[in-house]
Amino acid sequence: MTHTPDITRPPKDMIAALKDIGAATVAGTLGHMGIRNTHIQGPVTQNRGKSIVGPALTLQMMPKREDLYDEGEYADPEKQLHRHVLYHVQEGDIVVVDARGDMMSGVFGDMMSTYFKGRGGAGIIVDGCLRDRPNLEKLDLPLWLRGWTPNFHTQTNLMPFAVNVPIACGDVTVIPGDIIIADDDGAVVLPPALAPEVIAKASEHHDWEEYSRMKLMQGAPLQRYYPLHDDARPEYEAWKLEQAAAKR
Amino acid sequence: MTHTPDITRPPKDMIAALKDIGAATVAGTLGHMGIRNTHIQGPVTQNRGKSIVGPALTLQMMPKREDLYDEGEYADPEKQLHRHVLYHVQEGDIVVVDARGDMMSGVFGDMMSTYFKGRGGAGIIVDGCLRDRPNLEKLDLPLWLRGWTPNFHTQTNLMPFAVNVPIACGDVTVIPGDIIIADDDGAVVLPPALAPEVIAKASEHHDWEEYSRMKLMQGAPLQRYYPLHDDARPEYEAWKLEQAAAKR
Amino acid sequence: MTHTPDITRPPKDMIAALKDIGAATVAGTLGHMGIRNTHIQGPVTQNRGKSIVGPALTLQMMPKREDLYDEGEYADPEKQLHRHVLYHVQEGDIVVVDARGDMMSGVFGDMMSTYFKGRGGAGIIVDGCLRDRPNLEKLDLPLWLRGWTPNFHTQTNLMPFAVNVPIACGDVTVIPGDIIIADDDGAVVLPPALAPEVIAKASEHHDWEEYSRMKLMQGAPLQRYYPLHDDARPEYEAWKLEQAAAKR
Amino acid sequence: MTHTPDITRPPKDMIAALKDIGAATVAGTLGHMGIRNTHIQGPVTQNRGKSIVGPALTLQMMPKREDLYDEGEYADPEKQLHRHVLYHVQEGDIVVVDARGDMMSGVFGDMMSTYFKGRGGAGIIVDGCLRDRPNLEKLDLPLWLRGWTPNFHTQTNLMPFAVNVPIACGDVTVIPGDIIIADDDGAVVLPPALAPEVIAKASEHHDWEEYSRMKLMQGAPLQRYYPLHDDARPEYEAWKLEQAAAKR
Amino acid sequence: MTHTPDITRPPKDMIAALKDIGAATVAGTLGHMGIRNTHIQGPVTQNRGKSIVGPALTLQMMPKREDLYDEGEYADPEKQLHRHVLYHVQEGDIVVVDARGDMMSGVFGDMMSTYFKGRGGAGIIVDGCLRDRPNLEKLDLPLWLRGWTPNFHTQTNLMPFAVNVPIACGDVTVIPGDIIIADDDGAVVLPPALAPEVIAKASEHHDWEEYSRMKLMQGAPLQRYYPLHDDARPEYEAWKLEQAAAKR
Amino acid sequence: MTHTPDITRPPKDMIAALKDIGAATVAGTLGHMGIRNTHIQGPVTQNRGKSIVGPALTLQMMPKREDLYDEGEYADPEKQLHRHVLYHVQEGDIVVVDARGDMMSGVFGDMMSTYFKGRGGAGIIVDGCLRDRPNLEKLDLPLWLRGWTPNFHTQTNLMPFAVNVPIACGDVTVIPGDIIIADDDGAVVLPPALAPEVIAKASEHHDWEEYSRMKLMQGAPLQRYYPLHDDARPEYEAWKLEQAAAKR
Repeated sequence: MTHTPDITRPPKDMIAALKDIGAATVAGTLGHMGIRNTHIQGPVTQNRGKSIVGPALTLQMMPKREDLYDEGEYADPEKQLHRHVLYHVQEGDIVVVDARGDMMSGVFGDMMSTYFKGRGGAGIIVDGCLRDRPNLEKLDLPLWLRGWTPNFHTQTNLMPFAVNVPIACGDVTVIPGDIIIADDDGAVVLPPALAPEVIAKASEHHDWEEYSRMKLMQGAPLQRYYPLHDDARPEYEAWKLEQAAAKR
Repeated sequence: MTHTPDITRPPKDMIAALKDIGAATVAGTLGHMGIRNTHIQGPVTQNRGKSIVGPALTLQMMPKREDLYDEGEYADPEKQLHRHVLYHVQEGDIVVVDARGDMMSGVFGDMMSTYFKGRGGAGIIVDGCLRDRPNLEKLDLPLWLRGWTPNFHTQTNLMPFAVNVPIACGDVTVIPGDIIIADDDGAVVLPPALAPEVIAKASEHHDWEEYSRMKLMQGAPLQRYYPLHDDARPEYEAWKLEQAAAKR
Repeated sequence: MTHTPDITRPPKDMIAALKDIGAATVAGTLGHMGIRNTHIQGPVTQNRGKSIVGPALTLQMMPKREDLYDEGEYADPEKQLHRHVLYHVQEGDIVVVDARGDMMSGVFGDMMSTYFKGRGGAGIIVDGCLRDRPNLEKLDLPLWLRGWTPNFHTQTNLMPFAVNVPIACGDVTVIPGDIIIADDDGAVVLPPALAPEVIAKASEHHDWEEYSRMKLMQGAPLQRYYPLHDDARPEYEAWKLEQAAAKR
Repeated sequence: MTHTPDITRPPKDMIAALKDIGAATVAGTLGHMGIRNTHIQGPVTQNRGKSIVGPALTLQMMPKREDLYDEGEYADPEKQLHRHVLYHVQEGDIVVVDARGDMMSGVFGDMMSTYFKGRGGAGIIVDGCLRDRPNLEKLDLPLWLRGWTPNFHTQTNLMPFAVNVPIACGDVTVIPGDIIIADDDGAVVLPPALAPEVIAKASEHHDWEEYSRMKLMQGAPLQRYYPLHDDARPEYEAWKLEQAAAKR
Repeated sequence: MTHTPDITRPPKDMIAALKDIGAATVAGTLGHMGIRNTHIQGPVTQNRGKSIVGPALTLQMMPKREDLYDEGEYADPEKQLHRHVLYHVQEGDIVVVDARGDMMSGVFGDMMSTYFKGRGGAGIIVDGCLRDRPNLEKLDLPLWLRGWTPNFHTQTNLMPFAVNVPIACGDVTVIPGDIIIADDDGAVVLPPALAPEVIAKASEHHDWEEYSRMKLMQGAPLQRYYPLHDDARPEYEAWKLEQAAAKR
Repeated sequence: MTHTPDITRPPKDMIAALKDIGAATVAGTLGHMGIRNTHIQGPVTQNRGKSIVGPALTLQMMPKREDLYDEGEYADPEKQLHRHVLYHVQEGDIVVVDARGDMMSGVFGDMMSTYFKGRGGAGIIVDGCLRDRPNLEKLDLPLWLRGWTPNFHTQTNLMPFAVNVPIACGDVTVIPGDIIIADDDGAVVLPPALAPEVIAKASEHHDWEEYSRMKLMQGAPLQRYYPLHDDARPEYEAWKLEQAAAKR
């Protein structure tokens, strides 16, 4: 019987702390920490405005070799590894698929995706395609994909090969259990060990941004307001007091 | 005078029988029948939610050679083959253009597309671009394209070369008169000779899907409900009776 | 101190005269004038329905060389050339960025774009990406891009190199001060010296188009109505009189 | 029984007159005549130093559709169109194959190529691959290819579809019977109707080139010697007389 | 301490039996057996005329993540996995590297390759680059590569990640211990379990090929000699007797 | 009259000191110094075994715009900027051309290249093509190119735009006067300011390499000999003494 490993999930409060940070801040902070690129390039949001954070379950597709995978094998659903990755799904999990950028294979269709949603999965990232879009869209699942195809997952050149192993997706290495942050900018990989530092740094420099944004929108000089120049700090502090007063 | 051949159209009831099947089911069924790939890769839906079925009229664009096609020739509209393919359009027809993946030529613009719509054309598939999007969108024509360009059809590297000949579009061979099924998953080519078998197979396995989908959405085990396990059949049969009773 | 040149802007009435012409007509007219391709290929509209005309400020990104640009240099914002191009923005200006088709660098983020909008900038064209989409979309700025990334502008392989120099963007040479016309078809470059001829030609052949469009939509013959055949001119003239009468 | 059309061959003396001109001169001359690009891009010489001129027989490969071409069909060699194009080969003919840039199909192998050579074929151009290189190289056939593969011609995604029809090869339209000029610069298509003009123009400007080349090699100024400046004509004329005298 | 698994090598006589078969015959035979594509696409011979057969040791490169691999780690050579794959090399082994098609990383240089040769390695296949070509060429090692670069293996975007795990190389899945057959046509993967059938089939149809090749080279009809027609069998049999007599 | 700037050349002894270092050592040393990538990717050696070092003259090609460059302009050779870059050539100079990866334009032909050689030019790097290969090869000029074409430099999509300005070539920024080191590994850019450090570092670790290479070739352990282990140093020192003695 096929058995595949589960992942170690990061603590719930770590996930919670990352909820409002956004992919751009995470990627940028990691960049300044020396991790140059964590952006899964290629898959783009399929339903704008979604924002998810969660641990990665991984599925590795490989080039099909008919001696390793054939239609006969397909007959026994329990051998199909693209099903097994879904068996591991817990509330809030994100499935990340290395589909090798292939535009001719639809990794999951309507029923698999319904099951994923029923299990409480947070979203799916594929450097390739899903199929069955007319039905699948009704689920309103957060999806980052390269596209859609009517073909099923092993119809042309791919076969499912492994579950919860390290994969390369969109030119980023993803280790099972890594944290995925995905929004309209795309999907970013955050190693759990670096999450505390990212959370700390991301919360640092926010205080004057709202004021600066307001001034910039009025056409005020970038040099003075972004980053906030020392000369402008008094006026910002004054504004902050006003705001506080107004709220009382 | 330029003369181009017409196509043989499949029977109306064949088209009708295919209306509710969807590109994914057609492509998947053909895949299991040994026709590996019939998905026209590259052109994607430009106005989500459209679904069309109809016979293919074809237009072949070729690399421009100024000794075969020049601006002077352009002066006589009746020599322009991209017009001729439209002359053949009957209610429900689909124009499929081999534009060689070119992103710099807009095969049809606003007026050609208006004429196409006036003739009752069902939709257009181009492995390339149309132009005049601001106007053309008002027509709400079902379109599967690689993109849009402001350039006209022979402005850069292409020339129209033949009408209703076999073409390659999106890496699929399309024979004039082949049936096109296109929806949000993309466009698929169905040879009319295989349509009866596809129609028969596509209608087979639908009976328990609604029940399974409902269960999966509730988080029930994939192993039990997709495909429906023998153990679960009695509960499904019971549900079916209930449903029937409820409807009475 | 870093100093960058400003551009010469075309007269306001030239810009105004181009407002209703559209990218397709400009590109097509230039094509017939012997300027084969002025379409900036790659960047596509990010918020459909926008239409802008204005002079180009240019920003040139180049492959990063750490001896020429490093994180330390980043410390002094006033050395950052992507800021300098924004300092030049006047009401109606368009920033065009040669980002080398790079999908891993987000040239501007939320704050830069807010400043751009505050200055009255008309829109941004990048053969690459912006970042910070969740925030940036609230600005509703007209944007033509290849995509989005969470990475900041120098996080991976690019560095800002020059402002208001000739650039190549989407395989078109753009000279600072060239006029950009951008709509849902894409962005087109119009050399100011050719603008008068384009404006003149673009206004020529419009008179019977509305009538022809109406007829074509009714399924009338393309041969008779597009271009309008001499045989059909009397009926068109009659219709025009009717229209005029109706308006009185 | 399968029957395919033959081509009309240009007169032998036209071919002979083109022998010493070279692909660069033909392409450049056509360029100045308004035929911008006749270079078959992609296929490169496989055995340096070869130079051939001859009429094109064409073979069109298309994306495989198993309903149109299957292994069973393969059983009857006389149906295989890649054989039929070879049946037409006469002394000096060149086979040009539209293999769609495919790197996974070897259009001809050792035995087909041996037969081609036995028939007196001048060379083969493929925007794709041949197979069986270890054996095929012994034939020393002039070949312009994208590469080599061990796969046979229909092993993956292509099927032979038509013989002696117009094809696109390396982004150039080739009409059966067009003249091919191929050397280390690549392969160029010359329409027979334009050959007389090309031959006339190509023979024009050669007289001072030998002298100029000699001077340039000595480090003399380009401005004076290429093209030959009027100031330098007397010294060239003098040299020419010397040369003539020396030969006597 | 880093430890990596060894592979199971196929019997020596299996390797020996494959020596004279050639990549084209192996790939073609596997194709007819239903294994469509076993050609490692991309890497091409770097020193023509080499032909090797042997078991695959595999090295997997992955997109660099600085939290998983940094310059510091580089300080301890014994942690470097590209060294470890070489520690496993036995006489006749072939190292196959999944370098992700990367053209900016040179997986091995001069010293590593010297060690590989010293251990008796048969050849190296990389869907990427080696470095140090001026020195490395002196070794005359059989190499199939995409190219060369002066950069070292982790200088840009890759890191060595695993040894003797299944990899994808040139769009073919390679299992450690699979047999590689490589010659001027490229490199092919042969699963050891299928080797006996391939060896049997490959030796079948060779008997009349020499005669047919001779006849084809003389311009004799393809229809009669390839495959050998029944009508021609008597003359072939006669020739075979002659040959035998001549040898005596 | 067209005037273009000259470059500042590095001292002759700096060039001399770099002669024996090789592109791999320079690129690797720069990599360890934090300059990640200086390899001009794309252009490859056209005549194996060449090794050159010299300062870069640069030529920038840009996408053709017929309003900026037309056939008429071509009539005055002295306006053609691809000639002007050659006017600057001094003994040992290297011309580097940003040809935008274009495969359809031959930047220089036979006569230009002859002049370049006559001036003592060391070699040419183009991320694109030259033309006239049959003649040009006789010059035996060191060349790193993407390929060859019969088309001339402005026949299709490019125009020469600037001389001795910063360019991007093969995804590396090249400043006029930068040092180019090119050999069979490819071409590398070395900023003159970093040359002394590179020269110093490159000469450091060479002393035991010859001994290690010899041992590795005999199959000795990599762990012991590369890098040379302290345990092996005595035997190396002994060998060094022997060698010295043998030479006396």
